[in-house]
Amino acid sequence: MGTQESYPIDVASIREDFPILDRKVGGDIETPGEGPDDTRPLVYLDNAATSHTPEPVVDSIVDYYRGYNSNVHRGIHHLSQEASVAYEEAHDRVAEFIGAEGREEIVFTKNTTEAMNLVAYAWGLAELGPGDTVVLTEMEHHASLVTWQQIAKKTGASVEYVRVDEDGRLDMDHAAELIDDSTAMVSVVHVSNTLGTVVPVADLADLAHDHDAHIFVDGAQSVPTRPVDVGEIDADFLAFSGHKMLGPTGIGVLYGKEHLLEEMQPYLYGGEMIRSVTYEDSTWEDLPWKFEAGTPVIAQGIALEAAIDYLDSVGMENVQAHEDLLAEYAYDRLSAFDDIEIYGPPGDDRGGLVAFNLEGVHAHDLSSILNDHGVAIRAGDHCTQPLHDKLGVPASTRASFYIYNTTKEIDALVDAVDDARQLFA
Amino acid sequence: MGTQESYPIDVASIREDFPILDRKVGGDIETPGEGPDDTRPLVYLDNAATSHTPEPVVDSIVDYYRGYNSNVHRGIHHLSQEASVAYEEAHDRVAEFIGAEGREEIVFTKNTTEAMNLVAYAWGLAELGPGDTVVLTEMEHHASLVTWQQIAKKTGASVEYVRVDEDGRLDMDHAAELIDDSTAMVSVVHVSNTLGTVVPVADLADLAHDHDAHIFVDGAQSVPTRPVDVGEIDADFLAFSGHKMLGPTGIGVLYGKEHLLEEMQPYLYGGEMIRSVTYEDSTWEDLPWKFEAGTPVIAQGIALEAAIDYLDSVGMENVQAHEDLLAEYAYDRLSAFDDIEIYGPPGDDRGGLVAFNLEGVHAHDLSSILNDHGVAIRAGDHCTQPLHDKLGVPASTRASFYIYNTTKEIDALVDAVDDARQLFA
Repeated sequence: MGTQESYPIDVASIREDFPILDRKVGGDIETPGEGPDDTRPLVYLDNAATSHTPEPVVDSIVDYYRGYNSNVHRGIHHLSQEASVAYEEAHDRVAEFIGAEGREEIVFTKNTTEAMNLVAYAWGLAELGPGDTVVLTEMEHHASLVTWQQIAKKTGASVEYVRVDEDGRLDMDHAAELIDDSTAMVSVVHVSNTLGTVVPVADLADLAHDHDAHIFVDGAQSVPTRPVDVGEIDADFLAFSGHKMLGPTGIGVLYGKEHLLEEMQPYLYGGEMIRSVTYEDSTWEDLPWKFEAGTPVIAQGIALEAAIDYLDSVGMENVQAHEDLLAEYAYDRLSAFDDIEIYGPPGDDRGGLVAFNLEGVHAHDLSSILNDHGVAIRAGDHCTQPLHDKLGVPASTRASFYIYNTTKEIDALVDAVDDARQLFA
Repeated sequence: MGTQESYPIDVASIREDFPILDRKVGGDIETPGEGPDDTRPLVYLDNAATSHTPEPVVDSIVDYYRGYNSNVHRGIHHLSQEASVAYEEAHDRVAEFIGAEGREEIVFTKNTTEAMNLVAYAWGLAELGPGDTVVLTEMEHHASLVTWQQIAKKTGASVEYVRVDEDGRLDMDHAAELIDDSTAMVSVVHVSNTLGTVVPVADLADLAHDHDAHIFVDGAQSVPTRPVDVGEIDADFLAFSGHKMLGPTGIGVLYGKEHLLEEMQPYLYGGEMIRSVTYEDSTWEDLPWKFEAGTPVIAQGIALEAAIDYLDSVGMENVQAHEDLLAEYAYDRLSAFDDIEIYGPPGDDRGGLVAFNLEGVHAHDLSSILNDHGVAIRAGDHCTQPLHDKLGVPASTRASFYIYNTTKEIDALVDAVDDARQLFA
């Protein structure tokens, strides 16, 4: 097993901030969190689905509801001013974290998926038409793939998919071929949630911009796990979720270049996003509020700021180094077995997740046996059904890592897989 | 002042569950919840904007993040099963609370506004066209008014507004006149957030159904404050928000009759809402998940269930009785002054809020002085700009009540208004 000393971050002290990691799992699922009937310690390797929430983030939520809960923007009273300042400054903090120019470029949504739909509806429905092409990749998450597919159907635009090669890397020659003057939008995942592939989004941005197309980067797996700067990758849009980066459920972020968001018409209509309303027509509020209709995700936005503070205190370079270490360790250990097929590039060239199959065992059965060992991984198509079709498997088993994971937990995974192998032998 | 004994509910013991009500307000707004420089006790009368959050609801959030935080639906592992059961059962609990038939009819959104936009996009864009009419009222919230106005513009449908009479009541003769065979949708507020008017939505449902139109009820102010049964009012759609009924921010509810939701195409695309996806096309998940794309508002849905448990322990009949008592008391006290104009029907015939203006003082100035007294009310157009235009005022001051409020707090409001009167005399 790895020792604490060998990690780029202080995993032992980080783990103390996550009481859920001390849970035992098993027993009755109808009384959640109640404590189990047996004593299997939780080994949580499902971070690409959702990360856990450290005490400072939980505290920020409690402090909000106990201390200054109030609706924002419209209030003159003291609590509303406190909540408004905190909520609006959370936008500034997110902007700073990803290198955006300011809060005008940061829209809070309920999740990554809504952020993608926002652009697909507000930009796509207005701008796309017959003859236009949206270029995706074969490894897009359903949030991007289904959204652009359906918006294309509504508008008469067509969708094309950049090939993924045998190593699970994006075929950049094919990208250069597909992205041409008919391309209106290139929408690509930054780190594949299935293959672990790190996509060269800056190169794709250059290709897109050479043809006056926009690029939408799905940062759901990248922003939580590595430094991402929208200026460096020259993304026109970037989306990610709070709950995958130590934050709460119920908040996503859409970054958009100011001039693009400015040109776009609103998507959701209602309070907070208008400037004036008559019975006949309406005009719109300034950015980013134009895109935040109704009472916004106030507590969630404030808690996202707390999550970013936590990640910055660890340091995103260090987070990435830890992810790299765990991914390589898991890849090495799992690839030592002839009956395990791993999807995606080698261990030293991927994000912090490894999806695989054990020969002759369905991913769901494997997942179930791992669960008997307390090992929480995800089995399924990981919202990349067409990619799984291409891989020729209905599902895979995915272990994904975060700042509190250890090589010892990966050893527990491998031991549990070993047990499954013997059970099914 | 009222005594505890005179209330239909045990206000004193309820208040113990809301630590925020013990806050003093004033001082630095940049360090929210930190405690003020001075010692004005908070008198919180801004409940129509957002309600506060009792300890059992805060506990449910903390228990989730510390105990069984996980992504739902897709996971086989123990934590995911716990979270899935809790999240899915929260839909059942909401269904029970409003008399729906089951979770198929309950979609969790981020707020009421999103629920309205969901129907406007998924039903409205598909079904509306030239010659169709959407009937609203003059007192609709922007969430309904702007949404239908803009969707009508996109589809060529027209919008008509049922008149509000001089007493602030809906002109039902005018409603009967406007609702005809051209009507496709009647979208009405149940309790006006400005006038306090209780709209006879069951009668409007009959009118709508007589002409094969649907009715969408905006329950943002009614569901938190009185028993609402979708069967009794025969609503086709009903929307409301968690944060106005003791729940967290970031969750709204769309109720829809099952056959209508079944017929509607999805609105947001992504993970969780699909059944199968290829690079060419997609099919959809069963209700309600078809309308919950991406990682849903898990912690918020579970906390909404805790809020409903709390309200049910008080009893919605009792909540309404307390609202009625406070509304009548506030109306009586404020209407004793000749220089105060109150909007909407008499005190014994309204929901638990009173919007008014003090002659010669702008609502924002009044609000600011009230804030100096620690009295938190809302000044503005309350997202009903066109209604305010009709009333001939740019803004009003609104006091709104909930289960923890007392007649003594209304006395504090009246005293503060008195002070403002003298300041501006």
